[in-house]
Amino acid sequence: MDNTKQHTLRVKDLGIDTYHENIIFIRADSFVCISEGFKALTRVIVNTAENRIIATLNVVKSNILTEGEVGLSIEAIKSLKVREGDIIYVSHLHPIESLSSVRAKIFGKELNTGAYNEIIKDVVAGHYSNIEIAAFVTACAGDNLTVSEMISLTKAMIETGKTIQWNKSIILDKHCVGGIPGNRTTPIVVSIIAAAGLTIPKTSSRAITSPAGTADTMETMTNIDLSIEEIKRVVDKEGGCFAWGGAVKLSPADDLLIAVEKALEIDSEGQMIASVLSKKVAAGSTHVVIDIPVGPTAKVRSHEEALKLQYYFIAVGEAIGIHTEIIITDGTQPVGKGIGPVLEALDVLAVLQNKPEAPQDLKDRAIIIAASLLRLSGKYAAGTEVNAAEKILESGAAYKKFMAICSAQNGFKEPIPAKHRFDVLADREGTVKSIDNRKLARIAKLAGAPKVPSAGVLFNAPLGKQIKKGDLIFSIYAESTGELEYAKEYLNSLTGLIEIN
Amino acid sequence: MDNTKQHTLRVKDLGIDTYHENIIFIRADSFVCISEGFKALTRVIVNTAENRIIATLNVVKSNILTEGEVGLSIEAIKSLKVREGDIIYVSHLHPIESLSSVRAKIFGKELNTGAYNEIIKDVVAGHYSNIEIAAFVTACAGDNLTVSEMISLTKAMIETGKTIQWNKSIILDKHCVGGIPGNRTTPIVVSIIAAAGLTIPKTSSRAITSPAGTADTMETMTNIDLSIEEIKRVVDKEGGCFAWGGAVKLSPADDLLIAVEKALEIDSEGQMIASVLSKKVAAGSTHVVIDIPVGPTAKVRSHEEALKLQYYFIAVGEAIGIHTEIIITDGTQPVGKGIGPVLEALDVLAVLQNKPEAPQDLKDRAIIIAASLLRLSGKYAAGTEVNAAEKILESGAAYKKFMAICSAQNGFKEPIPAKHRFDVLADREGTVKSIDNRKLARIAKLAGAPKVPSAGVLFNAPLGKQIKKGDLIFSIYAESTGELEYAKEYLNSLTGLIEIN
Repeated sequence: MDNTKQHTLRVKDLGIDTYHENIIFIRADSFVCISEGFKALTRVIVNTAENRIIATLNVVKSNILTEGEVGLSIEAIKSLKVREGDIIYVSHLHPIESLSSVRAKIFGKELNTGAYNEIIKDVVAGHYSNIEIAAFVTACAGDNLTVSEMISLTKAMIETGKTIQWNKSIILDKHCVGGIPGNRTTPIVVSIIAAAGLTIPKTSSRAITSPAGTADTMETMTNIDLSIEEIKRVVDKEGGCFAWGGAVKLSPADDLLIAVEKALEIDSEGQMIASVLSKKVAAGSTHVVIDIPVGPTAKVRSHEEALKLQYYFIAVGEAIGIHTEIIITDGTQPVGKGIGPVLEALDVLAVLQNKPEAPQDLKDRAIIIAASLLRLSGKYAAGTEVNAAEKILESGAAYKKFMAICSAQNGFKEPIPAKHRFDVLADREGTVKSIDNRKLARIAKLAGAPKVPSAGVLFNAPLGKQIKKGDLIFSIYAESTGELEYAKEYLNSLTGLIEIN
Repeated sequence: MDNTKQHTLRVKDLGIDTYHENIIFIRADSFVCISEGFKALTRVIVNTAENRIIATLNVVKSNILTEGEVGLSIEAIKSLKVREGDIIYVSHLHPIESLSSVRAKIFGKELNTGAYNEIIKDVVAGHYSNIEIAAFVTACAGDNLTVSEMISLTKAMIETGKTIQWNKSIILDKHCVGGIPGNRTTPIVVSIIAAAGLTIPKTSSRAITSPAGTADTMETMTNIDLSIEEIKRVVDKEGGCFAWGGAVKLSPADDLLIAVEKALEIDSEGQMIASVLSKKVAAGSTHVVIDIPVGPTAKVRSHEEALKLQYYFIAVGEAIGIHTEIIITDGTQPVGKGIGPVLEALDVLAVLQNKPEAPQDLKDRAIIIAASLLRLSGKYAAGTEVNAAEKILESGAAYKKFMAICSAQNGFKEPIPAKHRFDVLADREGTVKSIDNRKLARIAKLAGAPKVPSAGVLFNAPLGKQIKKGDLIFSIYAESTGELEYAKEYLNSLTGLIEIN
């Protein structure tokens, strides 16, 4: 039955950001609510002549909407391609077929490739509510995905996204399984690999909960908002690029699933594998090195857990045609000195420019990862790769390549730290015994990072360092005195940030 | 650090109904969003001098809020006990401890009683977002709860709700594991049991997705909105009552979990057992009969499934001190003739009044359930209970008791069907071969049920009935011609509603 005519409503832009969920706001006394029995949380279809979306209903009992008006969340307005005043029709939602597969998964059944395809297609099309995505994410978490399900999920994510084609047989890539501040090896690795004449079309993400992501750091030095065409142009010219992955939507499904995972604070192994590898396939990569830092405050907390991830990465990688190699690294303390986009960029530049004050730990990590990629490329024999990577970095070739890539991406700009600084000095002497990475990251965030790229923390007291009273432990950088005070206030309330014995 | 002073905002009542989830609407350009880095979906603490709630953030980029204003959903305003213009403070949410148990459950661990207590306490306090409740519900679905976890969950639900105390050793109750239209045995069973001098303080629910719940049906004949004190008064006087469970909040946790389960359309066995039995304990029951209809469109689709439920009900019931008995019944077609509150009430009255046109199937079911309860009470020997139940019903004693209970609940009123009727006649002769219960229910709902109690369907063609051309198949009742047309329009679009061979 076509009741759409009876349920005609006029769009009002309420400007409400509900993240990715389509929300529709309808008056409780409207004909559609009364006649259809729609209540809060009902899922409905919203139609225009050209488009349709599925949305979750919030019932409005005030005058923020007048009679005949309907509110849409920002996401809903975007997906439906409407403006204020446009006419929409609301109708009943027929059952979403793929949700029966989600229910089967909840009940412990193994799903096939077709089922994952349908689920991921519906997620990307916005057919799932947050509650439904949460149920899917939960059902896939734990050890609930078999390797063949991980493969199906990865393939489904690849199919719903874009893929970049290259006319080369070896395309390299790297990834770090997050968790420790300042671990900004990517710009250095990309520069070494591209300087070696190899191809590494790198896309990176912005910070979600941390003070900086690789994309945030690179954005302080060049333009990272590249289209797929621009990525191709830069990589064809220079062999590598620094692109923000969010701009190219290589794996739109992943963006949606990750948002709900973050909200639940669960790291689902299967989904993480699918997320990482689908984006690598999308970028056209053939050989990938995965860095897994292990430590008490890192994402992966034990060596065994790292070995299990290694197994999954390699098995799934093989099935989808990507050669994957794992490097298990130390995840017990921050890498480099900077925490925050600009301050991390300065570390990166110091390593590339071979400055004496360049952080050795950041350099060492970048060399190890770059060396593995050199070997994987087949151009460097095992045993020669570390020297080769060092030589490219220390000769200045990597720095030259870094600047060339930045030029191709619209030019290099100097990262400048924020103008207000507060130095935290040691109130006693001793040895640095422990560092609370999360609290340190929080100070950087309160100072403004990553939203204020020049803000953050410059850390000067790595584990084991001998400290004299009055020595600089770390500095806080902020663009406004308000933000600096804000970070200092938090600092003063803290205990156990850095222990000195 | 106490930043609350800096995050002071003035409440605006946006009148948005988000069901039970607390939503807070804050301007994107507000100090709190910028300084704390709050984004859409962030969970925050909202404080007044007296109260605090946890809410999910929706970021507002329009002028529905002015500077310094904060919007709260209807639920949030209620739980925080604020009015428009009141001042609130927003602060960061510290991790909710019990969510780590939810994550453990997601990862397949068995949880102990303490963990379920903490989870359910937090759910009831509104500390969980819908996403988090969805994750908990999903993690508990499937066969993921052990019997001892079901017991813990049931106990946790009992602890967070209210309990009614009785000064009697035998308190009877009944429950039907839903799924077939018109199965309105409860009023008849309660009348028989109370007429036998036994105690049955019955609470019932309203329809959620069906055209009528027992509470909706009883509301067409008497007042069902009883407080716990009123339930006690009515039951002390008459031995039974017809109360709406929603009014007494016997199991607030259950209401919240069920809302999310409904949205996901999953029936989690463990949660269903906990839900039913916790409410029985809360009502003070000691002996319960559970009716499990089995049929292709019922909730339980196979006999094996029914046997598994039987095992769980009995094991959990024993652990919490309730004697439980299961009756597995036919769930292949509607029971009685009426579908909709008033039309079902008329069926109930016809059975109680022993009218010749009373639906035999409804009477038979009520007798079986009442007989089991009589036997469970210990007052009737096995073999005599069915006759006893029949006698109480057929003598008119049950009807007399029904009227007495209604009197004690503020008087009986006659249920009157809606004034507009449309008869659907057979267009050929033959035997009724199949009935699509869901489509029939949908017609009743389009005609207005349960919101319009007098609306619905009066069904006249049970399976196997011989039909002549022109015979009445069913009638649609509606209070407005608009609603009648609405139901007819749907009817005309249908195929396969009733098959006649």
